[in-house]
Amino acid sequence: MKPEVLDYIAAHREECLALLVRACSQPSVSALHEGLDEMAALVGEMLRGIGFEVDLVPTDGAPVVLGRMAGSGDRTLLLYNHYDVQPVDPLDEWETPPFEPTVRDGRLYARGAADNKGAIVSRICALRAYLAHHDRPPVNIAWVIEGEEETGSPYLAQFVERYDDLLRTAYGCVWEAGGKDSRDRYTIALGCKGLLYVELRAREAARDLHSANAAIVGNPAWRLVWALSTLKGPNENILIPGFYDDIRIPSAAQKEALARWDYPEEETRALYGIDRFLCGATGDRLKEQLIFGPTCNIDGFHSGYGGPGSKTVLPAEATVKLDFRLVPEQSPERILELLKEHLASQGFGDIEVVSYEGEPPSAGDPSHPFVQTAAQVAEGIYGHAPALIPMMSGTGPVHVLCGQFGVPVVTAGVGYAGSRVHAPNENIRLDDFFAGTRYIAALLDAL
Amino acid sequence: MKPEVLDYIAAHREECLALLVRACSQPSVSALHEGLDEMAALVGEMLRGIGFEVDLVPTDGAPVVLGRMAGSGDRTLLLYNHYDVQPVDPLDEWETPPFEPTVRDGRLYARGAADNKGAIVSRICALRAYLAHHDRPPVNIAWVIEGEEETGSPYLAQFVERYDDLLRTAYGCVWEAGGKDSRDRYTIALGCKGLLYVELRAREAARDLHSANAAIVGNPAWRLVWALSTLKGPNENILIPGFYDDIRIPSAAQKEALARWDYPEEETRALYGIDRFLCGATGDRLKEQLIFGPTCNIDGFHSGYGGPGSKTVLPAEATVKLDFRLVPEQSPERILELLKEHLASQGFGDIEVVSYEGEPPSAGDPSHPFVQTAAQVAEGIYGHAPALIPMMSGTGPVHVLCGQFGVPVVTAGVGYAGSRVHAPNENIRLDDFFAGTRYIAALLDAL
Repeated sequence: MKPEVLDYIAAHREECLALLVRACSQPSVSALHEGLDEMAALVGEMLRGIGFEVDLVPTDGAPVVLGRMAGSGDRTLLLYNHYDVQPVDPLDEWETPPFEPTVRDGRLYARGAADNKGAIVSRICALRAYLAHHDRPPVNIAWVIEGEEETGSPYLAQFVERYDDLLRTAYGCVWEAGGKDSRDRYTIALGCKGLLYVELRAREAARDLHSANAAIVGNPAWRLVWALSTLKGPNENILIPGFYDDIRIPSAAQKEALARWDYPEEETRALYGIDRFLCGATGDRLKEQLIFGPTCNIDGFHSGYGGPGSKTVLPAEATVKLDFRLVPEQSPERILELLKEHLASQGFGDIEVVSYEGEPPSAGDPSHPFVQTAAQVAEGIYGHAPALIPMMSGTGPVHVLCGQFGVPVVTAGVGYAGSRVHAPNENIRLDDFFAGTRYIAALLDAL
Repeated sequence: MKPEVLDYIAAHREECLALLVRACSQPSVSALHEGLDEMAALVGEMLRGIGFEVDLVPTDGAPVVLGRMAGSGDRTLLLYNHYDVQPVDPLDEWETPPFEPTVRDGRLYARGAADNKGAIVSRICALRAYLAHHDRPPVNIAWVIEGEEETGSPYLAQFVERYDDLLRTAYGCVWEAGGKDSRDRYTIALGCKGLLYVELRAREAARDLHSANAAIVGNPAWRLVWALSTLKGPNENILIPGFYDDIRIPSAAQKEALARWDYPEEETRALYGIDRFLCGATGDRLKEQLIFGPTCNIDGFHSGYGGPGSKTVLPAEATVKLDFRLVPEQSPERILELLKEHLASQGFGDIEVVSYEGEPPSAGDPSHPFVQTAAQVAEGIYGHAPALIPMMSGTGPVHVLCGQFGVPVVTAGVGYAGSRVHAPNENIRLDDFFAGTRYIAALLDAL
């Protein structure tokens, strides 16, 4: 790589930071439909500013920003990011307001700093630095920045249908998300778990009643407790018949990559404030659970009185939000079907099942040349061989955008283990942000 | 009874109503410590106004108003009421402000109208009418009006300790609460279920995490679901070992009273908006469940995300509020002990159990002469034999004030099925209020 590119990055830190502050100042909470059009416009403007041809591609939801830039040769590199963020609650736990980016101790605090406006802006800065010293990129670039990743990318398939040709012929995709683990080692993931997100709703009386009536009127919170206890037991086994049937055993290359991964157990336990991992797992079993294990998680359970002290009330309704993380080849549609069948068969047909999101899983091949190139470049920037994780424990639309076309994916993020993604006080370290910028510039150079 | 007493009541309706408006205009929300001293002073002044010797007895909480009046003979009649009311929220559902009593269509709307300032004022009016035509009451009267019934009477025991001699020698007690059922039939209850109110708290990680971590980090909402599912099953049986052990079978007189009670099933189902009662109970089984069945009710379950749409979060904590309604001779202390032992034995020793309230149950004997007198007087006033319920399905401090001394209790209220007690638009019918006034005057006369 030309040293001038790195010099350029070093000389324009303040300018880059200003761009990041601007991106993080614009609320864009997809769950609340808040600020999405404004954020799409802002991202489009930023991409145009470094020479992209930009389309705001409409969908039935938020627009997808598509930036295209012609490079040398025929190969097209995809970049994927999202301009939306998670809700900010509980707001009172933020030390500074979530949409007022604040630098403290070398960290920038803001909702979206890590997930993933930091990654968007670091890529913009990398491209600007690269283009300051080259006529054009070494490959064609197609940058897809969607606005509903945090709500499960419900309309991304509409974009994919329209740009099917562009996507299926791509050489590889640099995905959003990721960064350094709790021992500060860089990590590259090659895919995502799938997701099924549902809400269970139970109702009994027409309104909340005095709890003396609990002797003769049903309680919807109890209904949900009993229904949930048939889904998963204290040993964490998911009890829905057929739930595990479609799971594919990982490949030899995937197992090998997982075995090489030195997962920072102690640091993770300390970070999360836990004494032990779920089911007491450690070593290979822990890594397998995290990367290849499906989950059934209660995201929220709400019913009745939650204020201080006591109130004797028989609630009229109860709601549970559940997410299932899925692994290849589980399908969200099939799991939803199995869930509904199971609830009905257990006598819980009265419970309403509302489905919000479904995304299929997609795991990657650590031996693919594109993946190997990304790993070598990362080693050059970060000074150590990165971990290659066949699949993130989280979810993104890898399958719909790349997996279904066989396009390999490598993540490139600017977060670290303390980034508090999806939580109050989300933050990135500025050093990671600029390392990420250098990495993208070097990766471009290597292609 | 002298007809002049009834004439006096009829002639002084407006004056009585003015007194009721004054009592209901003074906020006195014990849960918020709002207006309690002012209300105690107002009640004291009203009692002095009809010749009571009044003490405002201090406790560690709100003062207890004690009014005493010497009568003929040695026997002492207790009256029990409370001057506090429930919180008014949701305020926006009130058609007129809760502390601006308003008469519409023969009903007076105000927080406390039914529960139970209406009962206090109707008794004052009854005594005034009686004393206008008699030198003194036929029995000594000791009137206890506490200020924290709605928060579980936490300090009433301090009053009881001080006036132990007065209480244990009483002939009987006219309790607060009650009135007419949904078929407009007068109902007298003779006791109260007990109560144990607890909060269960589970914690796992130090903060909320991205739900991808559900593969390796415990979920406190699941912990509470599994713990709760060991407390009660879908057949409503409470599974805590020993929970039912101390329950005393109802006496023949209690069973007979219950059998005579024509419970308005259809009206109640319509009022609550339910198709069927719990476990499909009807007839005798339903009445037994309601009056002699202990409960384990979820008052609230709160954990994680409860907003619109989806948020993928692994909550750091989960909280459940539970109330157990207890029947003779279950004790709240013993049930709390059994609950804790059970949770620990099931592997849920990590769940914190916080106890808020405990009140022992107290059921009455329908064949007691005091109860029989009250029933005969009620039949004279209301034109039909009242239902005699050995125990209310709700809870009050019957045990601590009367039950523990063997003093029989009869409720006398001015509410009806549409009174919306504890809810917005609480109200009483003025005809019921004046019937209640005549009833108390007649009961005095009969003693």
